Amino acid sequence: MEMLYTKTILTELQNFYKNQLLNDTIPFWFPRSIDKEHGGYLLMRDQDGTLIDDDKAVWIQGRATWMLSTLFNTFDQKQEWLEGAKSGIDFLNNHCFDTDGQMFFHVTKEGKPIRKRRYFFSETFAAIANAAYAKASGDKNAADKARFLFGKCIEYATTPGLLPSKFTSTRPAKGIGVPMIMINTAQQIRDNIGDERCDEWISKWILEIETDFVKDDIKCVMEQVAPDGSIIDHIDGRTLNPGHAIEGAWFILHEAKYRNNDPHLIALGCKMLDYMWERGWDKEHGGIMYFKDVYDKPVQEYWQDMKFWWPHNEVIIATLLAYLMTGNEKYAQWHKLVHEYAYAHFHDKKNGEWFGYLHRDGTIAQTAKGNLYKGPFHLPRQEWYCVQILEQYLNSN
Amino acid sequence: MEMLYTKTILTELQNFYKNQLLNDTIPFWFPRSIDKEHGGYLLMRDQDGTLIDDDKAVWIQGRATWMLSTLFNTFDQKQEWLEGAKSGIDFLNNHCFDTDGQMFFHVTKEGKPIRKRRYFFSETFAAIANAAYAKASGDKNAADKARFLFGKCIEYATTPGLLPSKFTSTRPAKGIGVPMIMINTAQQIRDNIGDERCDEWISKWILEIETDFVKDDIKCVMEQVAPDGSIIDHIDGRTLNPGHAIEGAWFILHEAKYRNNDPHLIALGCKMLDYMWERGWDKEHGGIMYFKDVYDKPVQEYWQDMKFWWPHNEVIIATLLAYLMTGNEKYAQWHKLVHEYAYAHFHDKKNGEWFGYLHRDGTIAQTAKGNLYKGPFHLPRQEWYCVQILEQYLNSN
Repeated sequence: MEMLYTKTILTELQNFYKNQLLNDTIPFWFPRSIDKEHGGYLLMRDQDGTLIDDDKAVWIQGRATWMLSTLFNTFDQKQEWLEGAKSGIDFLNNHCFDTDGQMFFHVTKEGKPIRKRRYFFSETFAAIANAAYAKASGDKNAADKARFLFGKCIEYATTPGLLPSKFTSTRPAKGIGVPMIMINTAQQIRDNIGDERCDEWISKWILEIETDFVKDDIKCVMEQVAPDGSIIDHIDGRTLNPGHAIEGAWFILHEAKYRNNDPHLIALGCKMLDYMWERGWDKEHGGIMYFKDVYDKPVQEYWQDMKFWWPHNEVIIATLLAYLMTGNEKYAQWHKLVHEYAYAHFHDKKNGEWFGYLHRDGTIAQTAKGNLYKGPFHLPRQEWYCVQILEQYLNSN
Repeated sequence: MEMLYTKTILTELQNFYKNQLLNDTIPFWFPRSIDKEHGGYLLMRDQDGTLIDDDKAVWIQGRATWMLSTLFNTFDQKQEWLEGAKSGIDFLNNHCFDTDGQMFFHVTKEGKPIRKRRYFFSETFAAIANAAYAKASGDKNAADKARFLFGKCIEYATTPGLLPSKFTSTRPAKGIGVPMIMINTAQQIRDNIGDERCDEWISKWILEIETDFVKDDIKCVMEQVAPDGSIIDHIDGRTLNPGHAIEGAWFILHEAKYRNNDPHLIALGCKMLDYMWERGWDKEHGGIMYFKDVYDKPVQEYWQDMKFWWPHNEVIIATLLAYLMTGNEKYAQWHKLVHEYAYAHFHDKKNGEWFGYLHRDGTIAQTAKGNLYKGPFHLPRQEWYCVQILEQYLNSN
């Protein structure tokens, strides 16, 4: 059987991702999005780059800061990336914290609070932003801030009731989002500034995912379970998010790589990808469906069959990483499918970057490139990460 | 010019709605949804009636109780409707209130709380349920409860800060939802048990909508504005909900009818309908779009072009009522368009009732007939209300 991905093709792929990242994705956002007056970034933009709102989403301020710092650390020490990152760090640290130490979710361009939420995702993104910026700049305060925020996130993640809950205690539940984001946060802290807490915590969170969320009997990764790992047979409890679970799969494959290709972690990451590809890939139209019910009942969300940009970024990473780590031809085929679907349907060939939201049939549902949830993160991270793993693979094979 | 809606056609329409209501919509839900063990209703059902979740959404428990009581009060004194309504009243009053007097949003089948929200819509639906049930049963306690809850809703609606807010005070905003729901609540209280507070409050809320939400210069009804009625030029502030505004239009037309065809209120209701039909009706595929930006920019919600069942129910009522009150042929044409679109695309000819969620192109996006937000309310209310106004019209013309 002929190999789908020869070294020549993998080299072309590496060039493709690098070219997209540096000549299409990043130039859509920078330098125009850097807010020279107030610091931070103005990222809520329509397809052609027109600003549709000058508010700032704190998640995205942190993620953009991380991305610019990471490009500086790994690609090219461009002064404009470092200065851009500093603008984000200053805005995050000066304007995005409430007096109780919790971060806001949504602020005005000047940094006045609009909304705080009952989650600590703002904090995880500020942690990785500070860690990557500390490495880029050598700023010790940023490293301290990253470590402090990482500690706070561990506290939030492990202390029930510390943050107010949306639900009563009648039917307790936990989501895969917390161990997932914490694995990625710890990996970023470890890569950029080192922290002796990381390895142990990463092992614990992977074990929690493996023990409580991965269900081999029904070949599924749950999005939410009861505290003991049992399936909650109500609409919310049954709702799966295949793209999210597959993001979790590549965080675990990444950890396997860090741990000298730990075979147990490779097997775990691959089976998570296998289970959720089967549930998420749309065999009729192509692309990854947003939500599915574990027993194929209707979910609460009416837009469950839409195609969002970010699951495609995560599945492109997961399938390529699984292929490079295992050589299993199936993953090359899946990668080719999702890569071709995504660059054909999401990529805006005229203005650069990707549209965020397609109908199930692949037509564009709305044109914003940036809003409260979308900005320079999943797409540039995918292109950057794929360049990195392809480079490592091609250099050692 | 020939009239589109002759008396013969209007009589056929009346028979059609009555037949749908009594032989298609109501039998989908009752008697099977009455929970004989715990009281209340089991309403989260798939297209064929299969129960997909035995939780209870408090809004819908109240709305279903109101609907059964109202059918008893206005159509036919069927004992099963009265007994069904009693089951809802008992469940609401025994299980859906927190110790602080606020109502829950989502409870288990036994009535254990799952979630409480920062709004008082559960209370408005419990108020109209108790009012209609009081009329049906003669139960004085239910009438007292309805009046008490109406008073609490007035207090919540007029006391800033009494309920916790989702947003900070940086950019204060108010929604059209509060005056709208309060107009309808007051109308129901007045119709069923009478209450001297109603007329004055209804006038105040209509004035607030007219003064702060209706924008003649741009021919628009805003969903949200600043406290002084100015447009908030950010994504949330710009987002319109045409079906919701048109529901507000028919509440005002209904009030105009009650007030001896008050010409100012007829003009107000009709222009709200005119403005939002123009913005909401999908000229390409038919049907009412869910969200639009006031300046045609992208909205935050990616599913903004989906077709939901309930805006169609509200637009069917508004266009028919506007036609019957004004004789303006345009409204007959619009009514015919939306009625034909809705019964062709939403109605489940096999199992009865309507699907809730279509893609923009009219295909079905998800099959649930009942969930946290959908149940026996908008559709049976539309069919019931249209029968009533057609009967009144045909009897007096």
